[in-house]
Amino acid sequence: MSETKLYPPEALFDFTVRVFRHFDVPEADARISATVLQSADLRGIDSHGVARLHSYFDMLRLGRINPKADVSIVRETASTATVDGDNGLGLVVGPKANAIAMEKALAAGSGWVSVRNSNHYGIAGWYVLQALERDLIGWAMTNTAALVTPLWGAERRLGTNPIAIAFPGEREPPIVIDMATCAVAYGKVEIARRAGKSIPTGWAIDRNGNSTTDPNALIDGGALLPLGSDRDRGGHKGYGLAVMVDVLSAVLSGANWGPFAPPFALQQEIPTRSVGRGIGHFFGALRIDAFIETAEFKRQIDELVRTLRGTRPAPGTRGPLIPGDPEREAEAIRRREGIPLVPAVVEELRDISRQSGIPLTAL
Amino acid sequence: MSETKLYPPEALFDFTVRVFRHFDVPEADARISATVLQSADLRGIDSHGVARLHSYFDMLRLGRINPKADVSIVRETASTATVDGDNGLGLVVGPKANAIAMEKALAAGSGWVSVRNSNHYGIAGWYVLQALERDLIGWAMTNTAALVTPLWGAERRLGTNPIAIAFPGEREPPIVIDMATCAVAYGKVEIARRAGKSIPTGWAIDRNGNSTTDPNALIDGGALLPLGSDRDRGGHKGYGLAVMVDVLSAVLSGANWGPFAPPFALQQEIPTRSVGRGIGHFFGALRIDAFIETAEFKRQIDELVRTLRGTRPAPGTRGPLIPGDPEREAEAIRRREGIPLVPAVVEELRDISRQSGIPLTAL
Repeated sequence: MSETKLYPPEALFDFTVRVFRHFDVPEADARISATVLQSADLRGIDSHGVARLHSYFDMLRLGRINPKADVSIVRETASTATVDGDNGLGLVVGPKANAIAMEKALAAGSGWVSVRNSNHYGIAGWYVLQALERDLIGWAMTNTAALVTPLWGAERRLGTNPIAIAFPGEREPPIVIDMATCAVAYGKVEIARRAGKSIPTGWAIDRNGNSTTDPNALIDGGALLPLGSDRDRGGHKGYGLAVMVDVLSAVLSGANWGPFAPPFALQQEIPTRSVGRGIGHFFGALRIDAFIETAEFKRQIDELVRTLRGTRPAPGTRGPLIPGDPEREAEAIRRREGIPLVPAVVEELRDISRQSGIPLTAL
Repeated sequence: MSETKLYPPEALFDFTVRVFRHFDVPEADARISATVLQSADLRGIDSHGVARLHSYFDMLRLGRINPKADVSIVRETASTATVDGDNGLGLVVGPKANAIAMEKALAAGSGWVSVRNSNHYGIAGWYVLQALERDLIGWAMTNTAALVTPLWGAERRLGTNPIAIAFPGEREPPIVIDMATCAVAYGKVEIARRAGKSIPTGWAIDRNGNSTTDPNALIDGGALLPLGSDRDRGGHKGYGLAVMVDVLSAVLSGANWGPFAPPFALQQEIPTRSVGRGIGHFFGALRIDAFIETAEFKRQIDELVRTLRGTRPAPGTRGPLIPGDPEREAEAIRRREGIPLVPAVVEELRDISRQSGIPLTAL
């Protein structure tokens, strides 16, 4: 971390808005997109914030993402909808589809929206935090370009396919689950590779399908392993969850699933075949008071949180965390001190500035 | 497996119905309960079939389960309901609550039911297979008595909390995911213990919270580990999923959550505190044609299944399975050849026969 420097969140936000506006993304859409990206940087999910801005920039510059997407409902019932994202920014399509799920929940008790023809939507956690503010239990999933092997496979067939869900407490902070369905994030393998370190078993296979501890073997045609890693430790379960996310996000909406999900960044290979439109997301919202008094629910969540925190700690640990703790703690620090960026990311932002003419005075 | 013998499914079914009828469980309820138990035996989930009949027998005999439960809706919206199981058999309450979720889905696009005041409901997979028959995507979850530690904990705080979901294909068999959110089933540790074998790391901790390979250490006050096992391999993710299941099943319905979930069998310890009623379940149903033409969905599922089966195999394997393959293959064999029971289970059935006077001629 010695090479990172801290940057003010506001300056990064303003720059991000201007980058999207540069491509004539409407003002409100540009602002919501910047908000979702900023949320990743604040919450410590460094891989999903401005570190990805250059990829969005490239995709917009090459016309591979529609800056003025007309997000529309193509089918609906009282509690469900299928949304077509018109090949827009996932950062625009996702918030609009999530809003539809929340509106349906307020009217019908629950709302479920499957989305096709979209692109990378940022962190899944942002969407469920929106639901929390409305006393809804929010769910968010998305498929992504293939990087993970099915258990007993030797090649990339599924995305890291995250699942997020959140539950509000009264005095305790909310429980916020936001997890990829593979054993470890690609970014952690990247960090090990740059540091010249080996990786634990259970993270990845090499191009021949053998377990590996060499981070280069993943990058050189290998694949990440699903959560659970191997048959003994439940790798079939993480594989099952990844399939679930793919079906709900992409098969149900008519997007590209599995190995046919289009890539997010330019340098990634484009699948040889298309089985739908863009990538897919899945959003859900449940009205808490459709099931139980909201105040009672929150009191019980507080009790659950305290009970879990009160668990006797395993040796060498300070005891269990609550899902969402690390992200909330990161946000408290980063709002105060700024967002740490590594030089490579700063250089990417400078390159955007050079190409677009948008000033980057703050950096 | 050399000590197991094969028994006709019909005879076990009839005996099971008569055992429930012995306690004046209504005929229809007794038959559905026997159906759910038989489904476990047919699908190879041996721990959840007639191997549990003696526990149900004990609980009914001691009046700890209500044989004539009046299952009722206590709150509802167009797409949701909260159900009180009246302390009935989970095998009765579960199917009724699942039916409510399916009816709501047919009317409103989706249906979501959280259930309190219930007991052990058998295999989660049975419920989602019911939804499949109606072209619905079915979900089923339940909490269970605490057996799993949160990551970095040293004691049992959460149940094995399974998640099931299923998706229908057209010509290919359905994808049926049915998984506990811990790394491995308790039953596998039991098998290792009886065989005098060690268990892999990542399955369990001992009573002090240290990783163990001794199956006795789990039984002697230890705990199972969540899916992912440790921090490096994503144990916080399995822990998060277990919390999710507990909240949706128990906090949302007003049942007992976490360490306060009451036990299933007599020999298990009863929690010192009650925070709700009974254990909880959560059922969901999504109408496929609320999102996309059902025929199109099924064709894409077929393609997905073939694509996953076509994955290049890892060395030493025959390549990826589809979730649900092992259970479906077990069912094909067992319907033909009979259900294998170990002598200890047969002895338990004989004991029920002796205590109740119900003849066990088939065994």
